[in-house]
Amino acid sequence: MNTSEFRRRGKEMVDYVADYMEGIEGRQVYPDVEPGYLRPLIPDSAPQEPDTFEDIINDIEKIIMPGVTHWHSPYFFAYFPTASSYPAMLADMLCGAIGCIGFSWAASPACTELETVMMDWLGKMLELPKAFLTENAGEGGGVIQGSASEATLVALLAARTKAIHRLQAASPELTQAAIMEKLVAYSSDQVVATLGTTTCCSFDNLLEVGPICNKEDMWLHVDAAYAGSAFICPEFRHLLNGVEFADSFNFNPHKWLLVNFDCSAMWVKKRSDLTGAFRLDPTYLKHSHQDSGLITDYRHWQIPLGRRFRSLKMWFVFRMYGVKGLQAYIRKHVQLSHEFESLVLQDPRFEICAEVTLGLVCFRLKGSNKVNEALLQRINSAKKIHLVPCHLRDKFVLRFAICSRTVESAHVQRAWEHIKELAADVLRAERE
Amino acid sequence: MNTSEFRRRGKEMVDYVADYMEGIEGRQVYPDVEPGYLRPLIPDSAPQEPDTFEDIINDIEKIIMPGVTHWHSPYFFAYFPTASSYPAMLADMLCGAIGCIGFSWAASPACTELETVMMDWLGKMLELPKAFLTENAGEGGGVIQGSASEATLVALLAARTKAIHRLQAASPELTQAAIMEKLVAYSSDQVVATLGTTTCCSFDNLLEVGPICNKEDMWLHVDAAYAGSAFICPEFRHLLNGVEFADSFNFNPHKWLLVNFDCSAMWVKKRSDLTGAFRLDPTYLKHSHQDSGLITDYRHWQIPLGRRFRSLKMWFVFRMYGVKGLQAYIRKHVQLSHEFESLVLQDPRFEICAEVTLGLVCFRLKGSNKVNEALLQRINSAKKIHLVPCHLRDKFVLRFAICSRTVESAHVQRAWEHIKELAADVLRAERE
Repeated sequence: MNTSEFRRRGKEMVDYVADYMEGIEGRQVYPDVEPGYLRPLIPDSAPQEPDTFEDIINDIEKIIMPGVTHWHSPYFFAYFPTASSYPAMLADMLCGAIGCIGFSWAASPACTELETVMMDWLGKMLELPKAFLTENAGEGGGVIQGSASEATLVALLAARTKAIHRLQAASPELTQAAIMEKLVAYSSDQVVATLGTTTCCSFDNLLEVGPICNKEDMWLHVDAAYAGSAFICPEFRHLLNGVEFADSFNFNPHKWLLVNFDCSAMWVKKRSDLTGAFRLDPTYLKHSHQDSGLITDYRHWQIPLGRRFRSLKMWFVFRMYGVKGLQAYIRKHVQLSHEFESLVLQDPRFEICAEVTLGLVCFRLKGSNKVNEALLQRINSAKKIHLVPCHLRDKFVLRFAICSRTVESAHVQRAWEHIKELAADVLRAERE
Repeated sequence: MNTSEFRRRGKEMVDYVADYMEGIEGRQVYPDVEPGYLRPLIPDSAPQEPDTFEDIINDIEKIIMPGVTHWHSPYFFAYFPTASSYPAMLADMLCGAIGCIGFSWAASPACTELETVMMDWLGKMLELPKAFLTENAGEGGGVIQGSASEATLVALLAARTKAIHRLQAASPELTQAAIMEKLVAYSSDQVVATLGTTTCCSFDNLLEVGPICNKEDMWLHVDAAYAGSAFICPEFRHLLNGVEFADSFNFNPHKWLLVNFDCSAMWVKKRSDLTGAFRLDPTYLKHSHQDSGLITDYRHWQIPLGRRFRSLKMWFVFRMYGVKGLQAYIRKHVQLSHEFESLVLQDPRFEICAEVTLGLVCFRLKGSNKVNEALLQRINSAKKIHLVPCHLRDKFVLRFAICSRTVESAHVQRAWEHIKELAADVLRAERE
């Protein structure tokens, strides 16, 4: 495919994408396919000679779309949101074209420097303590990871390296095995200190756990994968209080801040804690500025060596929405979840199972787990909306998460009417 | 930005991307900027009110491009190639629009199933042993990882879990610490068994190391991050001989197979070795098919929970190039590296430092490391081409890697003329 064909096909793809987004409400949110549906639909090996672009674009509707769960449908209320916005998609096109690998400053200075500044912008939006920022020659700084799991792993390995060095310095006679036996990682049932758990969006109290960690010289990593985006609104910022005690903090703009996956934002108070754990300096990656103290080589901050120019997505989204636009987006979702909550509360057959703080409502029919499992089964079989469950203590609970960028009150109302109808069916079937 | 504005801006961005690719040869391959150049050029925090798209697109040329190292310039011969092709970019646009997270089969069946089939397609292109494929209900299978580092980490953790289970079964009285002390990982100076090292593209002999690993019941992971793409050509396939002894194998189509970053292909002989090490099953990720044995939940195969629909890129690229087109692409690069090699060999001032097998030529001026460091410094200061060095034993060596999709014989010839001129300057300066 030469450049002039790309101009044509690229514009066709832009229209395909726009049509898809515009018409997504009309697609069934959860697919009908059974496991193994796809393999019989395509050849069992790659073609020797090229197929045409028309062949491929036709196969998208024929082969791919029937098996897609439409995460951006306004009837998708499952898991947590995954971000989608047009500015982020435009930025991703540019990112693909530049196609640089940002493992060192020299490998593409703009890729590294924009990331550092965007992480400062975002840190300021959250009112993170200055210690986490890079500007004004601080010791802290931010980095984009691929996922919260990677951020947690990076924090854990950095904490481990730091603890080992401390033990080695204090007791040089200890063997490596003896040191390993002394290492302890404390976690809640969600792994690390969590703001906004996946099950029910509950919050750990950092003001309690933080000072203890600091006193005991323990690394504190705080994960706010979903909830973090809300902290750009002053009325939710108090949920982040205590982050000043943390060594590292992470949340996912790719969930709720309109920056398409993947973009997991991680800050540390001491950059040297990361670079001490992950430093990798083969000759072919050395460059003249690297020991100047002036630059960042992000490969020392993460597990992978390669990295995309992901800060472009942040730059486009932050600028094209503005802070106020992003705040309005968060507030609209929170308002919709409270709207759903009040609908549930008006129906005496149902109960709310956890405080509704942000965009997630945990609810169930008063009664057995069995009846709630039956309700969820009916909901997901009908495929008009899509939900997933959780367990809170021993109760089987339905999660209603406000997800889509385009979800409105009307969708929430329709979803609730649908749930009520199915609930009536379930309760009738139970009585019979 | 609403959908109709996206249609317009998306098409403008397609043209911007096409213009960039078309004009890349005219851009200086390595930027002039100094560390810290970017921060003064942009505001120190995100705007409260939205900026316009025009503002942003203007800033790309003003702020971003001056700091970009142009990896796709035909004068870029540094590191290793990173893939770039129009079909992959088109697929990425679609991937961004679908925007599903593929952590389980149910989260988007097409995302999981296309990946499984594409990994079989690719495995067959490489003539991998059938044990690594999923089709015909085998025990093996492939997965797309983000990078070779992640694939290595995943293999290491799976191997560790397997070894621990074996030791626990054989000696139930052992404490965890005692087991940890018994674990051994063997590696070469490139970490794992490597086909095509980064420094000089050398090859470990799997036919020697493989049988020993099998006999000793040791996990063998083989990394062919760069070189792997070449194995789709029958004349290079022998370099992969011995992979039949491996437990896991990995290479990066995002380097040399025209599938844009990130796409690191990993196969294992036993899927259960991965899923045993990484299994994660909270209620909210359970779905009705998961224990059927019919489906794959890729979250059990990797470190992150979330994953993009990356197999679309493979599908577009394999179909729009065809196997023959991909083979022709590899062969052209190998031919260009041999062309450069023969130019070097014709000049008695220079020497070739490692066998040229694929697309990398390691060369140097006969003489001291100092003179070669001076030559590289002149090359990268002139910024007409871009190279990085390596150390082979104690020698400072220049790496000339064929990288760009659009590089032709004329670029290689011009690069060599330029290197010769600068070498003459360096040698003259040394004599004076």
